[in-house]
Order: sequence, then structure tokens, then C-alpha cells
Amino acid sequence: MSAIDQFSSQYGLVRKIDAFGYLKSLEGNPQAERKHGKVLLVTADTPLKASRGEGKTTTTIALIDALRARGIDAAAVLRQPSMGITAAGSKGGASGGGKASLSHPELIDWGLCGEMAAIACAQNLLVSFAEKAVDEGLIDSILVPRVSELPSRSLRQIAVDRGKGDLPERVVLTPTCELMQIVVLSRSMEEIGQRVAAMIAGSKEGKPVRFGEFIDLWRVTDMLADAVKPVLTETCEGSPVYVHCGPFANVSLGIPSLVSVEMACSLHDVVVVEAGYGADAGAQKWLDIACREYGGLWPSAAVVVTRASTWRDDPALAWRYPFHVNRLEGLDIPTFPLINLWDGEDDQVDSLKATAQQLEFRQPIIGNLFRDGGQALESQLDDLIETLTTSPTPAQSHSHKGMALVENLRWVAEQAYGVPADRVIYQDGFVESLTRATQLCADAGFSLDDLALVAVKSPATMTDNDSAPADQRTVTLKKVEVHAGAGVVQVNLTTSLTTPMPKIV
Amino acid sequence: MSAIDQFSSQYGLVRKIDAFGYLKSLEGNPQAERKHGKVLLVTADTPLKASRGEGKTTTTIALIDALRARGIDAAAVLRQPSMGITAAGSKGGASGGGKASLSHPELIDWGLCGEMAAIACAQNLLVSFAEKAVDEGLIDSILVPRVSELPSRSLRQIAVDRGKGDLPERVVLTPTCELMQIVVLSRSMEEIGQRVAAMIAGSKEGKPVRFGEFIDLWRVTDMLADAVKPVLTETCEGSPVYVHCGPFANVSLGIPSLVSVEMACSLHDVVVVEAGYGADAGAQKWLDIACREYGGLWPSAAVVVTRASTWRDDPALAWRYPFHVNRLEGLDIPTFPLINLWDGEDDQVDSLKATAQQLEFRQPIIGNLFRDGGQALESQLDDLIETLTTSPTPAQSHSHKGMALVENLRWVAEQAYGVPADRVIYQDGFVESLTRATQLCADAGFSLDDLALVAVKSPATMTDNDSAPADQRTVTLKKVEVHAGAGVVQVNLTTSLTTPMPKIV
Repeated sequence: MSAIDQFSSQYGLVRKIDAFGYLKSLEGNPQAERKHGKVLLVTADTPLKASRGEGKTTTTIALIDALRARGIDAAAVLRQPSMGITAAGSKGGASGGGKASLSHPELIDWGLCGEMAAIACAQNLLVSFAEKAVDEGLIDSILVPRVSELPSRSLRQIAVDRGKGDLPERVVLTPTCELMQIVVLSRSMEEIGQRVAAMIAGSKEGKPVRFGEFIDLWRVTDMLADAVKPVLTETCEGSPVYVHCGPFANVSLGIPSLVSVEMACSLHDVVVVEAGYGADAGAQKWLDIACREYGGLWPSAAVVVTRASTWRDDPALAWRYPFHVNRLEGLDIPTFPLINLWDGEDDQVDSLKATAQQLEFRQPIIGNLFRDGGQALESQLDDLIETLTTSPTPAQSHSHKGMALVENLRWVAEQAYGVPADRVIYQDGFVESLTRATQLCADAGFSLDDLALVAVKSPATMTDNDSAPADQRTVTLKKVEVHAGAGVVQVNLTTSLTTPMPKIV
Repeated sequence: MSAIDQFSSQYGLVRKIDAFGYLKSLEGNPQAERKHGKVLLVTADTPLKASRGEGKTTTTIALIDALRARGIDAAAVLRQPSMGITAAGSKGGASGGGKASLSHPELIDWGLCGEMAAIACAQNLLVSFAEKAVDEGLIDSILVPRVSELPSRSLRQIAVDRGKGDLPERVVLTPTCELMQIVVLSRSMEEIGQRVAAMIAGSKEGKPVRFGEFIDLWRVTDMLADAVKPVLTETCEGSPVYVHCGPFANVSLGIPSLVSVEMACSLHDVVVVEAGYGADAGAQKWLDIACREYGGLWPSAAVVVTRASTWRDDPALAWRYPFHVNRLEGLDIPTFPLINLWDGEDDQVDSLKATAQQLEFRQPIIGNLFRDGGQALESQLDDLIETLTTSPTPAQSHSHKGMALVENLRWVAEQAYGVPADRVIYQDGFVESLTRATQLCADAGFSLDDLALVAVKSPATMTDNDSAPADQRTVTLKKVEVHAGAGVVQVNLTTSLTTPMPKIV
């Protein structure tokens, strides 16, 4: 029995792994047999609209199938799809497609083993305890939102205690809540407990009050006992795939749990981490939050997926794909363009290669992954495999802790969206929102500038108007929200709508 | 491999069983090896307050451990505790206690394998689709409530679409929703689909509109794929225990799924079915709804649990326990009183036996089950075992289908609460509510009187004032709510508060 088997158990069609226990056992036993896998980041072009994916999951699945066919021990780490998307039917599933599919897509798409539901329940439990604290006079306002796994137009704004208190409240999608962020970022149940205790429940006469001051933490952690365990499933070709934690890098972290990636890296030589929507959301967050602030592994290579039409059909937006590829190369991450062809696009291969050459890309990887799966890629992976097998493990990345929030925002705008500091502008109310958040943190005993920055924006835009000429693009800063337990500060950017509670379609 | 193994799979610490598939396979193979177990109903005295249990689950566990020690192949079927209760901490767990415990109480109490959460998600999905139907003009009012697994004072009454529609809405606890009732009562996924299709989503110009008219049923049934599978776990002594569907017989069905009981009866000789709160709620519903209307198995014997203090400390309420015992005996169900002693009550045994003799009960079974588990019972079960092993399988019970709703209510009041027909009174508004419900059913193409009656009341009272003298006790009828998909009509009774969304404590 291998070490990981002692920490795994069957859950119906999948296995669940006690990643916390396994990683602790590795830590306590430096002689244990383990690998030191490298991270291959799969990210994408900015989509033309939120409901249209470029095919990151399909690519991820095809890539590991192809890498394994080439003799590489590769695995993938995916985020659990939001049932909001699958149930609402706007985007179909999020478990690959065609020949590049998971073996149990219906399970992955429809609630998995209840992980997201348990996190929803625990976050709503916190709200119920905050209500009790209001009744008992411990706080006079609640600062944590309720969550729902399903989208609902009517829940965007609600009033609770109707006819009595008539208190305005928000409901957000489960994957975007602070408790999900805490599960993503924590390395142990103790850390989860500490982070929940540090969450700001509400305020009393303007001063922050944390959950640790009035709740039994075990009620929350007991509820999360199974939710913290990553799922192990496989592709139709039998390649291993770990699934854990939620999507939506545009309005939250949108990365898989750090422990699921660390566990996969101890078990496989190459670990494909999916990060989307586009590179401006998913890759930005993996690099600038997971790696810089929380010890995630810096990628040894990246693949940026696009569709031929996304890349080239709208001339005003054609700058985005090369921007993403060049930005990652500029960070010394060898970056491979990958074009996911749809039916009827086979004749575009030569022209796509020519465009890639003009842009001085690496040789692009091109295939119809839905139709052909990993076989479409096998023969095109020589350079990628060479890179993954010969590059040294990347050095520790540089933290931005202590950088003033606005300075950090300007840095992200320039690096990830291509907008220079002087075109980062403030919407009315931003400064007041920043001042309130700064004071809230000071009152709670820490500095706002020590929190990791989470940009909140539309998935389909990087700037206020991506179609504007390069020298006219701006990024507007709108408002600031502190998640003290997760250790992040969320800042709403750009003038496009960023609703954490969409309408069902 | 036995037949059931083919339909079972490991889910972490428990097994989940595809009861639909297994029962269908039995049906298709009359020669298959199977048992025809008898149902032993465990119900209880009416509790003094909702948060105080008599120990039904503890008794159920001790009973099967004792029966198995006596060589009987006994198993139990329990309802899944509501996390509302365990998380709120008002009642502790609901998985037995002390020596009469389940082997993984923390799992049972804290969300099991996500069954309740999936049902919550699916019911809330229906509300989201109803909202979409409003947007599209298919309906102009929504008649299905949202649900929450957690109690919340503020969610009792809410307004959604704040600042625009400001629509009043209700949120109820998940175990009490129509979709939970559908899962409890259905024998196949097809039946669940048909029942969901028959649910009245809302109305358009006063006329009912069913979900089947506008949703894709697979979105709901896919979400329930694992939730419909009962869990198999065990007591600390290794006795088999099936757990499925939710509690709260005072405001809903509060019985385990019919298929979980049927499956258990095909695998064991004696199946203990737990039904509570008191006999006026749990037993009434097992007998009058499950057995009379949905083909559930009539009990071959019953055990009615009480605590010495519940039975005897309040003279004004001391009529309730003998009423329950005599009512069940009057239905030709051999009924055994069981007194669950607490610490310091051992010296009451003789006096309890004397009281039981005065009341002409069968010999009472008495023990401290928390302290001594099944061992407290083993030597006291001769009569019960004799009854279970020699009695014929009970005949089919009589349906009330077609009986006028008020006549049915009067029958229940007399039989289950001891209040004669002329003291069943109408609260202002009841007649209007009944008229509206009758019309709604007529417009939907069926008769209100063909629905099964679900009484909704406080768990701690049977009448408007249980402490009043027998000839002054009344039952007040308050309002009527149709659950067309589940095939039930809910009627709120008595003047005490019946909140399906308690406050966290």
C-alpha cells in the first residue's frame, strides 16, 4: 500500500483524499518516497463573453492524455464546476468534451460529493450565527453575505426579517465566498479554523468583530470535514485528475485548492493546473496570489488556449491573445500557444501558424481536441516536454505584502491588463470605500496593505473598453471589500458589470 | 456477491445503495433470494418541548443491538438529522448516545454524503426556474418556497428583488420542502421526474402552472442522482442501520424514504422504523400517510418511548402517554411501552411498572439505554420477539382517498389527538384558504380530496391546549397548502406556533 492509499477512500465513482493528512505525513517523513512535479499552467485568451469558454478543461484533459501517451507521468488539477452554470445550462458542463472528457462528467458537473454544498452550508451557518450575535447585542451590522449554489436574479438584492427589521442583504454564488477562499488557501483544518475565527462577522458601533469572538469553531470545521478532501477521478483514457474547489477567477480566486496542487506534485512529474477564465483572471491569480502570497508553485511552463475565432475574428480585440502569451513569456515562463479548433476549421492550420510566426510565438500547438482528444496533440509536444523535463524548478516568487493597495492595483493593471499607472482611474466613491476598508483593517489590528489583492471584474474584459486604441484604455477602480479571514482584499475594477449572482438562463 | 452488493458502493465511511435499482431487480426476479421483514415502529410520547427528545434514536439503536444479540436479524431505518439542529446546537446530535450510538455520529449529524444539500439545491433550482418563468411571462406568481438547511430567524420572511420587485417570499427548512417529500415517497427516478413535473410552480392569472410545462426535468433529477440513495452505516455494536431522508414529522412527513424501508425489509427479518417526534406526529404519519396512501408496510408491533419525567411529572399532560399506547393497540398493533431512564432514575423501576400495570399496559421495557445500550434490553424482549416472530404479516391498510378534507381532519383529530369532531374548529381565514386550495386543485385537474393529508403543528402539542381537561380540548384548523407533486395537502393545526424556520440557538 502506497502512502497516498492510506489517505484515500472510495466515494462512489471517485476517490476522496485526505490531502491535509497526506501532506502532513510527507512533512513528518522527509525520507518518504515522493515526486517533485512541475506545474504546467493552462490558461486562456480572454473570452468574447462569459458564457463562451475557449476549451481550457478540454485542453487540460487532452494534454495529460497526450503527455501520458508520450511516457510522462502527468496529472491534472481542475476546479469543481459551479452547479450554477451546469444547472442554469448557459455554458453546458465544465468537464471537457468529446474525446477529451472525464469519465464521469455528470458527477463532476452536478455537485460532485457535496463539497460546494457543504461550504455553502457552512458560510450560511456563519450568517445565522451573526444574526444571533445581533440579537444578543454583540454586533449591530452583519458583514458576511449569504450564498447560493444556484444563480437567481431575485437573490441579487434581498431584504431579510421582512416586516420587522427589513435589513438589506446580499447573496453571492458559493464559489465566490470567503469560506471557499479559506478552503482554497489553507493547508490544514487548524488553519481553516484560525481563518474562520479571523473573519470579520460584522461591526459593533463601527468596530470590527470577528467570528472567533463568539462562535464554536468546531461547528464550522465539522461541517467541512469531507469538503476539504480533493476528489480523484480520471479522463476517459484513464489519466488521473484531481478536482477541488470552485471556479470564477474573475470575481474571486478561481483556482483549485493549494493542497490539491501540492499533493499532485508529490505524486506526478507534471501537474497541469487549470486557471481561467482568461490569463488576465486565472493566470494572474495563480501567479500573483497563489504563488506570490501563499507559497503555490511557480509554473515551469504555460499553455494559453484560444479558439481561432476568438483570436482573430475581431480586429479590435486581437491584441489580447498575443498580450497574454508575451506577458507570461516576459515572466520567464516558457509559454506555448494552443489553438483549439472547432468543426470546419481544419483548413486554418497553415494560416494560424503563419500568424503565430509573425508574432514571434513559439510553434503553436493546434488541434480539434473535442474530436480527436489527446491524439491531436501527441506529436506536437516535443518542445513542451523538453521544457518540462529540462528546466530547473522555478525559484520562490516575490511577495507584494506591504505594497500600498493602489500601487499594487497599478502594477496589476500594467502587468496583466496592459494599462499604465496614469490610466488607472478612480470612480466616485472609491476613495471613501478604500478609506473605510483601511480603517476597518486598522481597527482589527492589521494593515490593509498586508492582504493579497483579488481583482474583481468581468471575465470578458481586461479594461474599461478593450476595443479602444491601446493608448486610450483605462481601468476604473470602484470599491474595496476586505476578507480578513482569507487574508485578501477584493477590489472591483472596470466599468463592466460584475455580478456575483447571475440570472438563470 | 449477493444481489444487494451489486447495487452498493463505498462512500467514505459508509455505503450508499441504489435502492431504486435493487428493488427493481427484485421485482423483475421473483425467484431472487430475499426476506420479507416485519416493521417494528419506534415512536414516542409527545415531548414536553421541541428541543427535548425522549430518546427514539437511542432506543432504536439499543433495540436492534439487543434483538441481534438475541439472534434476530434486525436492522434500523433512521431519518437523516437536519443540520439545522446539529449546527444550531439546540438538541445535540440525532444519532443516538452513549452505548447506543452509531459508529460515525459526526458524519450522520453533519451532512452525511450531501443528500439533504442536494435536495436543497434542487428545490432552489426550481425556484430559480420559476423566476425565469416570471421573467418570460409564463407565470405571474411563484408558489414554491426557497429552502435552507440552516435555521435563520431572518429568513422566516424575506423580500427578494429588493429595490425593484420587492416580492415577499418564504424560506423553509430543507427537510420540510415538497421535493424532500417527493424523494421520500417515490419508488423510482422516473416517478421523481413525474412528481416534479406535477409540482405547481406558480400561477398565471390565478390558474396553476406546473413545472412540467417549462423545465427540463433532467436538470433536477441529475442533481438528485446520489441523494436518492440510502446510506448504510452501523451501530457501535455492528448492527446495520439505513439512513435516508429528513425529519420533522410535525411540519412535514418526517418519515424515512419508503424505498429505504422496503429495501431493509427485503434484507432483514425485523426492520425498526423510527417515527417521531411523538406518536401524534411520527406514528400518525407512518400509518396514515406512508401505509394508507403510499403502500408502506403496516407495523407488526410498536414501541412507544418515553422518559419517566415526561410521562409522570406533569399531571395535566400525563394523559398523553397512555393515549398513544392505547391508540396503537386499538389499531391492533401490539404496542410495548419503553421507558428510557436517565441517570439517577434506576430506583423508579418498580413504581413505573406499577403505573403501567394500573393502566393495563403490556409489561413495560425499562432501561438506561445511554449507559447500558442494548444490554439493558436483552432480557426484556421475550414478548416483543414472540410477537414479531409469530404474528402474520399485516393486511393492506385502508386509504382515505376521496374523503372530504375536513372529514379526514376530524378523523385524525379524534384518532390521533383524542379530540371529537365537534371540537375541531375553524380559525378565521381557514374556509377561504380551503376554498382557494380546492379551486387550485380543480384548475389543475384533480380533486383536493384525493391528496394525502399532512397535519402541520407544533411537535409538543396535540391540541390547542393539551393541559385543558379532556372535554375542553380543541383542535383549530388554520390554513391549507397543496403540494401537488408529492400528492399531499398540508393543513396547519392548533393555535401554537409552527415555524418551519426556527431561530438558531
